[in-house]
Amino acid sequence: MPDVRAGDPIARLLAAAAPPDLADGDVLVVAHKIVSKAEGRVRRLRDVLPGERARRLAADNGKDPRAVQVVLDESAEVLRAERGVIVSRTHHGLVCANAGVDASNTAGDDELVLLPADPDGSARALRAGLERECGVRPAVLVSDSFGRAWRLGQTDVAIGLAGLAPLHDWRGRRDARGRELRATVSAVADAAAAAADLARAKDSAEPAVLVRGLERFVIREDGPGARALLRPRHEDLFL
Amino acid sequence: MPDVRAGDPIARLLAAAAPPDLADGDVLVVAHKIVSKAEGRVRRLRDVLPGERARRLAADNGKDPRAVQVVLDESAEVLRAERGVIVSRTHHGLVCANAGVDASNTAGDDELVLLPADPDGSARALRAGLERECGVRPAVLVSDSFGRAWRLGQTDVAIGLAGLAPLHDWRGRRDARGRELRATVSAVADAAAAAADLARAKDSAEPAVLVRGLERFVIREDGPGARALLRPRHEDLFL
Repeated sequence: MPDVRAGDPIARLLAAAAPPDLADGDVLVVAHKIVSKAEGRVRRLRDVLPGERARRLAADNGKDPRAVQVVLDESAEVLRAERGVIVSRTHHGLVCANAGVDASNTAGDDELVLLPADPDGSARALRAGLERECGVRPAVLVSDSFGRAWRLGQTDVAIGLAGLAPLHDWRGRRDARGRELRATVSAVADAAAAAADLARAKDSAEPAVLVRGLERFVIREDGPGARALLRPRHEDLFL
Repeated sequence: MPDVRAGDPIARLLAAAAPPDLADGDVLVVAHKIVSKAEGRVRRLRDVLPGERARRLAADNGKDPRAVQVVLDESAEVLRAERGVIVSRTHHGLVCANAGVDASNTAGDDELVLLPADPDGSARALRAGLERECGVRPAVLVSDSFGRAWRLGQTDVAIGLAGLAPLHDWRGRRDARGRELRATVSAVADAAAAAADLARAKDSAEPAVLVRGLERFVIREDGPGARALLRPRHEDLFL
């Protein structure tokens, strides 16, 4: 894939990079960064004027106050700001470090890449674009790498989704012993994002991975999107 | 795989179920439940006498006080007990619902399956047993399904590990634009566990999944184990 800039037609670029046998039951996992860049969801540090809260958080956590201001702009709520880490809930409802604002793989030190404004909408648009370009309708998953509260390392999760069931609910079904499964809902889309990340080197220019074999979770309609993976705030035990 | 009971030689059972071309670079992902059962890590509700704390937590959360006592016995620390959910840190340091105590896929309603006492040790023993049985030395990953604080649905993670790098550290390397990657450590083992879960139906008697293509993360020595995936308690922002 070439480098992506604001306004680039990424559906066309991805279609050109896809194998000729791209199929309806495939899942195309796309790193959010190229989606964000194509959508112009980029800010330059030199254009940011940090407010008082950003300056205070930056001083407490050893960060650039302008970068912190961008994080605050992307946050609906800051959950924790300690020891150099800011964990916040974004306006979409995603809970992650730095509101998903990222400085790696950008054109210069001055540029920060934000999450797409509507990642499910981005996934739907990309799916429609792929159908126009290729005549097939794979599911599209927009991914990002998230840290976890109690585990080290990051895993990729689905932040945008079109055409893949986000969750598979085993409840009410019976296990191999005939016993009813009680509390087992699998986060299929997040597992697909994590699986795709295993195939991708972060230092390569490979922004997309094709996942096959998940036909049973691929749906014709776009479905509820990755929004369905967000635990409602009133169920949050770790505010 | 047949049903597993305490004392069963699961290395032999897995070797018999494995494909003939099982190789050193493969990763055998094994659901902890058969490991726990083979190790006798099972308790019967009728043998449990709940204490006062268990009775109180059970009353507050609509649970069986005996099951709560088992959860408390497996917990080093209860982080949250609200709305029917108990989140605790196990003696191994794993943070999860019900200290990993599970009632599905057991012989009867009376039986609860615990996590292995030493999941990394279980993985190492299984790897050694597979080498004895098959003459090859695949990596072994013992998995469980964990919920997440802010996301719905469960994903599988590595709770025990032998022969697979738990984390891959991209820091210090350069991204595709030549910019240094700053905070990107991938939880490879958790991603492998999640990927394996996509290939497994929870209502089938399929306790193991063979993952191929991860040779670059498979190591000859057993390595640091899944313990290396635990965020140290002093770094925990969500106690």
